[in-house]
Amino acid sequence: MATIRDVAKRAGVSVATVSRVLNQNGYVNEETERRVRQAMKELNYKPNEVARALFKKTSKTVGLIVPDITNPFFPELVRAVEDVMNIYDYTVILCNSDEKVEKEREYIEVLKQKYVDGVILTTNQFAPEEVEEWDVPIVVLDRPLHERYPSVVADNYEGARLATRHLYEVGCRRIAHIQGPNHVVNAMERFRGYQDEMRALGLGDRQLVIQGNYQLKQAKEAVMAALAEHDMDGIFAGNDAMAVGALKAVQQCGLRVPDDIAIIGYDGIPLTEMTTPELSTVSQPIYEMGAMAARILIKQIEGKPLEKLHYQLPVQLVVRQSTSRRGLT
Amino acid sequence: MATIRDVAKRAGVSVATVSRVLNQNGYVNEETERRVRQAMKELNYKPNEVARALFKKTSKTVGLIVPDITNPFFPELVRAVEDVMNIYDYTVILCNSDEKVEKEREYIEVLKQKYVDGVILTTNQFAPEEVEEWDVPIVVLDRPLHERYPSVVADNYEGARLATRHLYEVGCRRIAHIQGPNHVVNAMERFRGYQDEMRALGLGDRQLVIQGNYQLKQAKEAVMAALAEHDMDGIFAGNDAMAVGALKAVQQCGLRVPDDIAIIGYDGIPLTEMTTPELSTVSQPIYEMGAMAARILIKQIEGKPLEKLHYQLPVQLVVRQSTSRRGLT
Repeated sequence: MATIRDVAKRAGVSVATVSRVLNQNGYVNEETERRVRQAMKELNYKPNEVARALFKKTSKTVGLIVPDITNPFFPELVRAVEDVMNIYDYTVILCNSDEKVEKEREYIEVLKQKYVDGVILTTNQFAPEEVEEWDVPIVVLDRPLHERYPSVVADNYEGARLATRHLYEVGCRRIAHIQGPNHVVNAMERFRGYQDEMRALGLGDRQLVIQGNYQLKQAKEAVMAALAEHDMDGIFAGNDAMAVGALKAVQQCGLRVPDDIAIIGYDGIPLTEMTTPELSTVSQPIYEMGAMAARILIKQIEGKPLEKLHYQLPVQLVVRQSTSRRGLT
Repeated sequence: MATIRDVAKRAGVSVATVSRVLNQNGYVNEETERRVRQAMKELNYKPNEVARALFKKTSKTVGLIVPDITNPFFPELVRAVEDVMNIYDYTVILCNSDEKVEKEREYIEVLKQKYVDGVILTTNQFAPEEVEEWDVPIVVLDRPLHERYPSVVADNYEGARLATRHLYEVGCRRIAHIQGPNHVVNAMERFRGYQDEMRALGLGDRQLVIQGNYQLKQAKEAVMAALAEHDMDGIFAGNDAMAVGALKAVQQCGLRVPDDIAIIGYDGIPLTEMTTPELSTVSQPIYEMGAMAARILIKQIEGKPLEKLHYQLPVQLVVRQSTSRRGLT
């Protein structure tokens, strides 16, 4: 493999000059730069990325910390980040934190030691002072952390209102909400949207909240238990996995979806098209969220100005069989 | 942040000695090593990983190239690799190749420039001579590449025979197979298993093969078309996504699963528990496959001997509602 010395020799310049061309710092005249680039091409010279990282304190690598890639919301998000980073010649180190703050801290430490150029973070757990100490560009994804850090989230509150109103519009009057974990900001936003919309619809005293912890099985069991005690004709689940759990519970109790109980989920993952009946949902622009976070991080790394710090992307109501009642929709 | 000089000073030794301790090469007496490690601890010294990579040509990072993380087979595999690598203090660079050989080549080039210590590869596409030139430890996952390279795969052939025989045992006599892409080795192994088992069951002349390309929608449409022309009472789909497509097609035609047509998938992804009826499948030990590939790669990196080069893990028949016929199972 050709070295920087071979390139210098062929171009008839010093190693320092080649280095200036590579790192695009210091003055190099145009003709010299052309000769150096020509020599690199002819010799098929690949700059040593590790040496460059040491010199420039940059590695063309970013970290991406997600709770768990096996949660079906995250693969598309991760894919989007990787696609955009790939276009800009960055690679992505994937980290699964299981939402454990200790694991997140360890990853941040490891990523810094590898001179990652930035980190995209899906978490709720850090104090802004701690994040500040990391001294690496951060973009927060899916869950806002603090106003100081750029973020890309979807409009969880409005999405929840949309879902609740949709159930009302197809005739539901006893609308239950399956709630995600208390410590996850977006779950709480969706809960708040449900509450406010129920009040706005004059159903404030008919609220029924079921804990599902964003998990299919937990949601299924909780809905089974709730069906034994409460009357309901509509269920708004805080994510799609819990909507599937609700669907199974309702069917297992011998009730029909949507005729007896209409169900709507949240997120818009492909799973919602695979059930029978297919699930209505509030669709987040998952790929766009990941891609946007990646682009913002690159801007930060390159020291370019951000148009704004916080992006809240719109969500969309997707109506499918699970809320399509005859004569109503 | 403490530097290597601070550590040397506190421990009362030279920088070269600290470096020897860090890199575990050259002679350092025990008492000195203890003092150096104590000093590192007291100063909370973190070795600069990038400088170490340059010196040792190792980066404590591995590459993981998969076709597409949004294909629901891969998240669990990726998660397993990352979990094991994390235990051994390696980070994982995730690459999505879309099965494009050019993209795979580019990634290999980038990964080498970053001095990754090894690569886990899910592909079918390389000549062994080309892989040899990469000069980096490789483990091949899910799809065998060449006998020269360590591999972890599941027993696709036997799994396909199991699935076909199971359909026979629940009473099916006209068993169709939905086939994955021709260029994917494991799809072809499953096809071969179907053929051989059909012959063994005396149904060799009743084979019906439908092309589904491992895609839900393509499988759904192909099954719809096939149902219009052929009589069938069982479907063995080459993966779970195609089994869901088949399920939808059969239901859309007003037929019942499993009473009219029994369906079994392949892979054992969580999706199979989310459909109604739940899908029977041949379950691969996905997590174990990823974890094993990671452990083998680490052994290779550390120059430890491998007990054997090729691991073929057993699969398991999982019987659920989609093949549970009254009175038969």
